[in-house]
Amino acid sequence: MKLATLKDDSRDGCLVVVSKDLTRCVKVPDIAAHLQGALDNWDVSSPKLQEVAKQLENDSSYGEKFDQSAAHSPLPRAFQWADGSAYVNHVELVRKARRAEMPPSFWTDPLMYQGGSDSFLAPHDPIRMADEAYGIDMEGEVAVIVDDVPMGAGTDQARDAIRLVMIANDVSLRGLIPAELGKGFGFFHSKPSSAFAPVAVTPDDLGDAWDGAKLHLPLLVDYNGAPFGKANAGIDMTFNFAELIAHAAKTRPLCAGSIIGSGTVSNKLNDGPGKAISEGGDGFSCIAEIRMIETINGGKPVTPFMKFGDTVRIEMKDANGASIFGAIEQTVQKYTPKGA
Amino acid sequence: MKLATLKDDSRDGCLVVVSKDLTRCVKVPDIAAHLQGALDNWDVSSPKLQEVAKQLENDSSYGEKFDQSAAHSPLPRAFQWADGSAYVNHVELVRKARRAEMPPSFWTDPLMYQGGSDSFLAPHDPIRMADEAYGIDMEGEVAVIVDDVPMGAGTDQARDAIRLVMIANDVSLRGLIPAELGKGFGFFHSKPSSAFAPVAVTPDDLGDAWDGAKLHLPLLVDYNGAPFGKANAGIDMTFNFAELIAHAAKTRPLCAGSIIGSGTVSNKLNDGPGKAISEGGDGFSCIAEIRMIETINGGKPVTPFMKFGDTVRIEMKDANGASIFGAIEQTVQKYTPKGA
Repeated sequence: MKLATLKDDSRDGCLVVVSKDLTRCVKVPDIAAHLQGALDNWDVSSPKLQEVAKQLENDSSYGEKFDQSAAHSPLPRAFQWADGSAYVNHVELVRKARRAEMPPSFWTDPLMYQGGSDSFLAPHDPIRMADEAYGIDMEGEVAVIVDDVPMGAGTDQARDAIRLVMIANDVSLRGLIPAELGKGFGFFHSKPSSAFAPVAVTPDDLGDAWDGAKLHLPLLVDYNGAPFGKANAGIDMTFNFAELIAHAAKTRPLCAGSIIGSGTVSNKLNDGPGKAISEGGDGFSCIAEIRMIETINGGKPVTPFMKFGDTVRIEMKDANGASIFGAIEQTVQKYTPKGA
Repeated sequence: MKLATLKDDSRDGCLVVVSKDLTRCVKVPDIAAHLQGALDNWDVSSPKLQEVAKQLENDSSYGEKFDQSAAHSPLPRAFQWADGSAYVNHVELVRKARRAEMPPSFWTDPLMYQGGSDSFLAPHDPIRMADEAYGIDMEGEVAVIVDDVPMGAGTDQARDAIRLVMIANDVSLRGLIPAELGKGFGFFHSKPSSAFAPVAVTPDDLGDAWDGAKLHLPLLVDYNGAPFGKANAGIDMTFNFAELIAHAAKTRPLCAGSIIGSGTVSNKLNDGPGKAISEGGDGFSCIAEIRMIETINGGKPVTPFMKFGDTVRIEMKDANGASIFGAIEQTVQKYTPKGA
């Protein structure tokens, strides 16, 4: 089953069930006004939503046209966005890039930060920033939405709580990270609003690509219209989603609708760092990684971070080449605060 | 105007308007089902809620009995909980306690962490933890709930966005903090669910005690039935709420209903560290501070962190000795995960 949220005049948008081919959708006000409402009562809402999804597949005249650019992130705002760093290769490269050492425990103890979840960007919204000097970067990720998870849940309980799978652009401001992490309290300014692809998908819809805790497909990242990354989200994921969720729930319960992210998808190449697609590699899901590779190979980074006007597209396709989640398509734009 | 949220079978509870003396309340389903709903549309809901509040004061037979122990935190779950460290004295002492140096920029650049906001404790709920070795501590704080704040808002805009004032217990797990901060991504396990006193109050209701961005009253913290802290929240607050909110909104907008915390209220004494109430001082709003003072005075901390069965009570009284927000009353209890 595929679900999306259309923009309307409400803060949480309008929940729709979307056809598998992403062409049609149906509003379901009698089941739930918005996705958080459906998640608040998933045992009741989910079978009803599945019925609508079945009808959409059986009757090609049913529903209205689904327009990805009219969609919010599936949860326009959420009660939690906890983002892991499951691809430890990415962490190691980014740390090297900012000359910070990586403790060996990072291979056994998941790294996770509490992200802001009150104001996500829509998947086709611009990334508006006041200053290019912030070092604007994309981070292509996989994320899951969970049901209620009790404090201290084990990995089996955590795996069973996964309700929906999404892909994300966890926008990062690299120029602000070193000083902010130096303060010791983690990211705040350096992690502005994230965006999620238009459609959230139930695990059963992913077929063999979903093993219960990992998604085994390439994450396609295009930067300014050219292929930039196609790292496989099922490869080099040191901590799977069950482990990330259990980690998040160690000292407090997670409310239904909490989003848990994978961190930037990143593949090693023959046990070394990755390689650009143009050089026969699988590329990168963020600019910070290619800058690190450039530093390793040539002594300094060459690729700049995103400038106003730059575009990023993030998508994932199934074995038949069909888009699963729809696409994140964002352009970086100059932001001027009102009154400034 | 005073607002509270009664526990019911819903996730967000039932919004009530509470009489100034905290004895009576009125449900307002025709105005808003829950507090987040009222905040989502404050311009419309607020005058209607004010009407009910006026009626409650004018007619002492109006409303039902208000029972603090039946209350949730005013927002049982929120879209954001961003907690500052405005009382830099606290930060300096806690850092000294864990032998971490404090950069001088901490006096000019606010420290703030992104907290979990999906599963707050009710004000009279127990603090349930698996292990006393986590180093369970209370942190008495002031917090505000804001309306929408655009990205890049200045301090005037930030001040104008303050809708409600609360007091909080930002439960902290001191034993987990050093290792977690050492990982570089900020707090996660070490900041479990926080609790807020039963009643949220509009700034106009605080009279002269509220100067627009600071609350000039002592925060009364009782530990195991004895006075432990009475630090004045208006003193030694290096960054006021307008500055904290503007800081939070630097690179992203804040959604209506976002909660911004002050950090542990902490007063210096004659420009030195504080002193216990039993020794004539204003005491402490967390155990970590008294342990630091003990270390300064005697070479090592004496007061242990909270054990199962320990209780904490946090309250604030107006000039006439009347409770403003009601009281946080929590007991630490052993938690055993289901199936463990």
